[in-house]
Amino acid sequence: MKFSCNQQQLTKALNIAAKAVTNHTTIPVLKGFLLTAEETGILKIASSDLDLSIETKIPVSVSEPGSIVVSARLFGDIIRKLPNEEIQVEESENNVTIKCISSEFRIVGQPSDEFPGIMEAQETNAILLKTELLKEMIRKTSFSASIEEAKGIITGVLFEMKKDSLTLVALDGFRMAVAKEYIGNEEEKNIVIPARILNEINKILGESSEEEFVKIILDDKKAIFILENTKIVLRLLEGDFIRYKDILPKENQCRLKINRGEFLESIERASLLAKEGKNNLIKLSISEDKIIITSRSEEGNVKEEVFIEKEGADLEIGFNAKYIIDVLKAVSEEELIMEFNNGVSPCLIKPMEGEAFEYLVLPVRISA
Amino acid sequence: MKFSCNQQQLTKALNIAAKAVTNHTTIPVLKGFLLTAEETGILKIASSDLDLSIETKIPVSVSEPGSIVVSARLFGDIIRKLPNEEIQVEESENNVTIKCISSEFRIVGQPSDEFPGIMEAQETNAILLKTELLKEMIRKTSFSASIEEAKGIITGVLFEMKKDSLTLVALDGFRMAVAKEYIGNEEEKNIVIPARILNEINKILGESSEEEFVKIILDDKKAIFILENTKIVLRLLEGDFIRYKDILPKENQCRLKINRGEFLESIERASLLAKEGKNNLIKLSISEDKIIITSRSEEGNVKEEVFIEKEGADLEIGFNAKYIIDVLKAVSEEELIMEFNNGVSPCLIKPMEGEAFEYLVLPVRISA
Repeated sequence: MKFSCNQQQLTKALNIAAKAVTNHTTIPVLKGFLLTAEETGILKIASSDLDLSIETKIPVSVSEPGSIVVSARLFGDIIRKLPNEEIQVEESENNVTIKCISSEFRIVGQPSDEFPGIMEAQETNAILLKTELLKEMIRKTSFSASIEEAKGIITGVLFEMKKDSLTLVALDGFRMAVAKEYIGNEEEKNIVIPARILNEINKILGESSEEEFVKIILDDKKAIFILENTKIVLRLLEGDFIRYKDILPKENQCRLKINRGEFLESIERASLLAKEGKNNLIKLSISEDKIIITSRSEEGNVKEEVFIEKEGADLEIGFNAKYIIDVLKAVSEEELIMEFNNGVSPCLIKPMEGEAFEYLVLPVRISA
Repeated sequence: MKFSCNQQQLTKALNIAAKAVTNHTTIPVLKGFLLTAEETGILKIASSDLDLSIETKIPVSVSEPGSIVVSARLFGDIIRKLPNEEIQVEESENNVTIKCISSEFRIVGQPSDEFPGIMEAQETNAILLKTELLKEMIRKTSFSASIEEAKGIITGVLFEMKKDSLTLVALDGFRMAVAKEYIGNEEEKNIVIPARILNEINKILGESSEEEFVKIILDDKKAIFILENTKIVLRLLEGDFIRYKDILPKENQCRLKINRGEFLESIERASLLAKEGKNNLIKLSISEDKIIITSRSEEGNVKEEVFIEKEGADLEIGFNAKYIIDVLKAVSEEELIMEFNNGVSPCLIKPMEGEAFEYLVLPVRISA
C-alpha cells in the first residue's frame, strides 16, 4: 500500500473515524484504524467498537493499492502534528512509513484481515433528513436518556417515524424529552438508538457541516447513517420503547408563561444552596404573577423571584434543579409554557406555539 | 456590617483573593474570605493559606462598618452568578444576607476574630518592578523549579538582587532556568519564593493588568507584593540557594543557531514515539548543517531533520524531550543559540544577543 495526500484533509477524516475507536477492548485491532487505499484514488479509513462502526473516505493519490491497520492514537497524533503539507504513507511487511518534508516515521501495523467488516444494508427504508434538523433534534433529547447501562431500552433514544412526522424521545424515569418535526417518511417504523452512540453521531454531523442531508437506512438490527463521505453503522437497541404518549399529561390546572433566560439564571443561583442534598432540591411557589424559588442547605438559604403570566390555580412543587436546568439549556426560545396539575404530578415544558418539543419533569415530594 | 457594591467589581476582587484559599486545611476559617467593610467606604477581602495571604480592596458604599468570614466557595459562586447590578451585603449575628434585584441569599458566616492577621512590614528594602517584566521573568523560570515538596530550597525561585540587576533562577536537578534584567536595586539581597506561590502571584498580576508597577517589600522571612489595590504576603523559603553560576558552563565545543519554531515542532513529533520509555528519550545527532533527531519505542521509530548553523565539533547527545520542549515554549525568540561541550555535559540555550535568559538542560546518557 502506498499513497500520498494532504495533511489537513487526512486529519479531518481521522477525527471523524476516531469517534468509533475504543480503548476499552481486549481486541487489539479495534484500537486501530483500518486504512484501505483503492486503485480509484480513494483512501477509506474505518474504525469500530463493534456497536458502532465508521467508514470515511478522502481522495488521495494511490500508487499501490492495499490495506493495513495502524494504532489510531499514534497514527492520529503523528498526522495531526505534521505540517499542512503533502504526506506519503507506505506499507511494507506490516511496517508503515510516514514521510512529510523532513519527518520520517516508521510504525508497526497489523494485518487488515483481522478487522471486522463494515456491515452493508440494502437501501430499502431509506429516510433523508436535513443534517441541521437532525442535530437539533438529537441535542434536544439525548441528554434525557438514562446513563445507567443496566437500564436497557431507556439508555436509547426512540426514533418514531410516521408517514408525516419524525419524533425523537428519551427518558430516564425522572424526566422525558420529546422532539417532533413534520417531515414525510415512506414507511412507519420505530427504532431505538443508544444515546451514547447518537451523541458520537452528532459530533460527526457537527464536523461535517458541509453536508446538507443525511440518509438513514434501516434494518431490523441496525441503522446506517450515510453522509457524502462517511458511513456510520450502528447496532440498534432491541425491545419495545416505553409508550411515551401515555405518560404525557392530557390536561393542566396551572399554566405559566415564563422568560427562559431569567428563569434559568434564578434556578442556577437557587441550586447553589441545593447542591449539598442528594436531590438538588428547589421549591417553586407559584402564585399570582410570580414564582418564588427557594432552597436551603446547612450553609444557608436562598429566595429568588421570577415574574410570570399565570392561568389557573396556585401551586407549591419541588424539583431536582438539574432536570429543570437541563431543559432550559436545551432549547433557545425566549419564552416557554409550563403546565402543572398538582404538587405531585409531572410538569410539562413546551414552546409557546407548535410541537417542536415537550419536556416532562417529575417533581420531588416536599414536606409541608 | 452592611455595604453595597457593583457585582462585577466584587467578582473581580473575589477572583484575586481566591488564589490564597485552600481546601486542604483543617482550620475552617481558612476556607473563607474575611470581609471587612470600613467607614471610609472600602471593602477589604482577605484570604490566607498561612504560606500566602492576600488582601484586596474595592470602593463600596458602607452603611455599617464591620467584618465577617464567609465561605469562599459559596460566597464566590453566589456573587459570580448574580447579574451585573448593585449587590447589598448585610451581616447580623453571623448570618450574612446578600440581596440583588429579586435574589436574596442568607448564608452562615464565621466570626472574624479567628482569621489570621495579614502580616505588615516596614517599607525598607522596597523594590519597584514593572508588572509586565516581572510576569515575563516568572513565566520564563518558575516551571523549572522542583515540584517535589521534599526538595526544600529548589522548590523555590531565587530572586537575586544586585545594585544593577535582578536575576530569577529555578532548577530541579535536571535543568535550570535563569532570567536576568538590568534594573537598579537599592540593596543587594537574595530571597527564595516558593514556585507554587509565585505562579499564583503571576495569575494575580495577569488579572490586574491595569497596574503598571508592583512594589516588593522584603523582610528576613517574608516578602510583600504591593499592587494598587492588592497586597500579597508570602513566607520565603529559608536557606541558601544553589550557587547557580558555578553550574553554568564557561566554554563550549559546539555552538548552533536554531529556528525555535521548527526545532520545537520536530522535537514534539519525535517525542510521540518517546513517550513509552520513562525518560522520554530523544537523540540528537549534530553534524554539518543539520540536527537529526531520532527516537524509538516498541511502536516504531522516527527521524526528524532540522537545519542549523553550526560552529565547532559534531556531537551525539540524548535528552528528555520534555525538558527541551519546556524551554522552547517558555521563550518567544525566533532564533536561539544552543551550546554543547560533549555528549554527557549539559546543553545551554540562550538568546542570539543579550542575557535575558539562559537555560541549562542535562543530557540523558545514550548507549552507543
